[in-house]
Amino acid sequence: MPVVGVIGGGQLARMMQPAAIALGVRLRVLAARTDESAAQVIPDVVLGAHDDPAAVAAFARGCDVVTFDHEHVPTPILQRLLDQGVPVRPGPNALIHAQDKAVMRERLSALGVPCPRWTHVTGAAEAAAFAAEVGWPFILKAARGGYDGKGVWRIEDADQLRDVVEGALARGVELIAEGLVPFARELSAQVARSPHGQAVAYPVVETVQRDGVCREVYAPAPGLGADRSAEAQRIALTIARELDVTGMLAVELFQTADGALSVNELAMRPHNSGHWSIDGAVTSQFENHLRAVLDLPLGAPTPHAPVAVMANVLGLDLPDVYPAYLHCMARDPGLKIHMYGKAVKPGRKIGHVTVLGSDFEDCVERATHAAAYLRGEIDE
Amino acid sequence: MPVVGVIGGGQLARMMQPAAIALGVRLRVLAARTDESAAQVIPDVVLGAHDDPAAVAAFARGCDVVTFDHEHVPTPILQRLLDQGVPVRPGPNALIHAQDKAVMRERLSALGVPCPRWTHVTGAAEAAAFAAEVGWPFILKAARGGYDGKGVWRIEDADQLRDVVEGALARGVELIAEGLVPFARELSAQVARSPHGQAVAYPVVETVQRDGVCREVYAPAPGLGADRSAEAQRIALTIARELDVTGMLAVELFQTADGALSVNELAMRPHNSGHWSIDGAVTSQFENHLRAVLDLPLGAPTPHAPVAVMANVLGLDLPDVYPAYLHCMARDPGLKIHMYGKAVKPGRKIGHVTVLGSDFEDCVERATHAAAYLRGEIDE
Repeated sequence: MPVVGVIGGGQLARMMQPAAIALGVRLRVLAARTDESAAQVIPDVVLGAHDDPAAVAAFARGCDVVTFDHEHVPTPILQRLLDQGVPVRPGPNALIHAQDKAVMRERLSALGVPCPRWTHVTGAAEAAAFAAEVGWPFILKAARGGYDGKGVWRIEDADQLRDVVEGALARGVELIAEGLVPFARELSAQVARSPHGQAVAYPVVETVQRDGVCREVYAPAPGLGADRSAEAQRIALTIARELDVTGMLAVELFQTADGALSVNELAMRPHNSGHWSIDGAVTSQFENHLRAVLDLPLGAPTPHAPVAVMANVLGLDLPDVYPAYLHCMARDPGLKIHMYGKAVKPGRKIGHVTVLGSDFEDCVERATHAAAYLRGEIDE
Repeated sequence: MPVVGVIGGGQLARMMQPAAIALGVRLRVLAARTDESAAQVIPDVVLGAHDDPAAVAAFARGCDVVTFDHEHVPTPILQRLLDQGVPVRPGPNALIHAQDKAVMRERLSALGVPCPRWTHVTGAAEAAAFAAEVGWPFILKAARGGYDGKGVWRIEDADQLRDVVEGALARGVELIAEGLVPFARELSAQVARSPHGQAVAYPVVETVQRDGVCREVYAPAPGLGADRSAEAQRIALTIARELDVTGMLAVELFQTADGALSVNELAMRPHNSGHWSIDGAVTSQFENHLRAVLDLPLGAPTPHAPVAVMANVLGLDLPDVYPAYLHCMARDPGLKIHMYGKAVKPGRKIGHVTVLGSDFEDCVERATHAAAYLRGEIDE
């Protein structure tokens, strides 16, 4: 049976392990520390940094394919693995679109995929000219390295613009500007695609963000018409095919009040918006990620229930989760709790919960109650 | 988060790991070899024999509770763990009923639980007198150590009776005799029970055996009326409560043509008849086993679909399963394949497949086709 190397020891690598156990596939993880989330549950751990070429090369020896828990591995390191004959999935030429927002916007625009209006930013005057066209406020983003709201600025006026642009340029941070999309909600369209070109599309979901962090996911997105759903899936399938993505692809989308869609971001790995599929679909995103990177036939993404609601458990100030965990299990025997083995820090994703059902409001209440209880926000 | 020690490194311990990963609970496994099924997927492996008191005691240090992959740990070793303050679940006084069929029959008979007619056997003449009462052929069983049809003899005549009894007594094997139950089919009733007395009952399933080995499981048992189903669940709940079982209990039952039930065997751990629950129920038997032995509230055993069919993959003569595995995934995107990481040996359980659906015949065809293909019995 093949060995899949996973670079990065976070919760996404951790949640690949149950899928790998069932498939009989072996995981090897490149982790920074032995106590990282994935390293706690995968026997074959190689310690090293994802940006250390020698560590990555040593790790990859004996792997049948290398894939990722995150998107931070520099392109030259991945190119070297390919040169040594180790398949890297997704490959660096695909992954660059999840690493660099400027490259992503260039490519998606060329493909005719709907995007916000955008431009490269090399100075404050250029960005002000863009703002004059698209209107204030607008968005500045670091092309690389941002996540969970970091590296994203909402620019209200010329003073703030100058501060952010000058600060970024002084730190060598490349920026792009995007028009503010007056979105009514955010969606995510996930597909799995394998090297031989097979692809499957998961139901399009709604993601609820607070302070730039995903808090809840509704699967499927409530009230999304069949046409819009198909359009979102088509966008994701097009991006996967044209960018030659292998593995899971998540396309984060804005939807405006008139229903129109535009692409916000791409993630080329299992994604928070697909965690519901562990308990809620015939084939989870983690299993299909492994099947895709191994070029195995993909599994059905069919949901088990009409509604699945996932809520992230974000660390707050409850250092010992165990009593809360017991309470939540007792309150709701249908609740699926997932803990990541991570120390509690404010705002950190330390787990998630999923509820399946047929009544949307009921599922939302159950999932959000449990997530709030587990983080210590409520105590009844 | 607590550490659960699992004695035995087989596929049952292996399949506890995905549940433990989600719960955030840590497993430590006592395995005989590093390449055993569970030792491949659980980082914390202690090497040692389950019948070596020192090895078991060393293993148990640092475990919050000790449980089992199999039922072969001698009572005195478990008693010593209890004396050292390590919770053992199920405890030795419960487990003895799954280890010793004579003790089990005594106890169930005293509880009024329906059993085949039975007696202790200390010589051939005594057994012949029993046969004269219940009729030939009848069954002889080793009280201890039998599994998958081993340690069970169907006795046709006096010559065979004498051979088996004398052979067994010469080897120091204690025997019991049971009347042959003219069963129409076999059922399994599974419950989880926790130390504080909470219990949940899974849907009663039908098990299909060939040559003494379970080949298929139909969940729920087709055509089983609500009354019989409740009766089977009541039997399992009674046994769990009266024997103070903690963790999963499987009660294997005979059902005769008139519908009557009697108990065949007990297993106090996750059981082959419950593998369908990994993919087919809100809470798998493995998750509920861990929740029960940790005295956490139990999860809902609710099935995801009207029908689940599980088929065991038994080794035959296909040394490399991978091409077959690929074919099966391509043929049926809804198929759930579980491989145990075990070398292929004829007759050995090396994996299982599960199919969910609404049409019973369709599910049986899909599951049995995949199992036959994966063992190399068919090639189209």
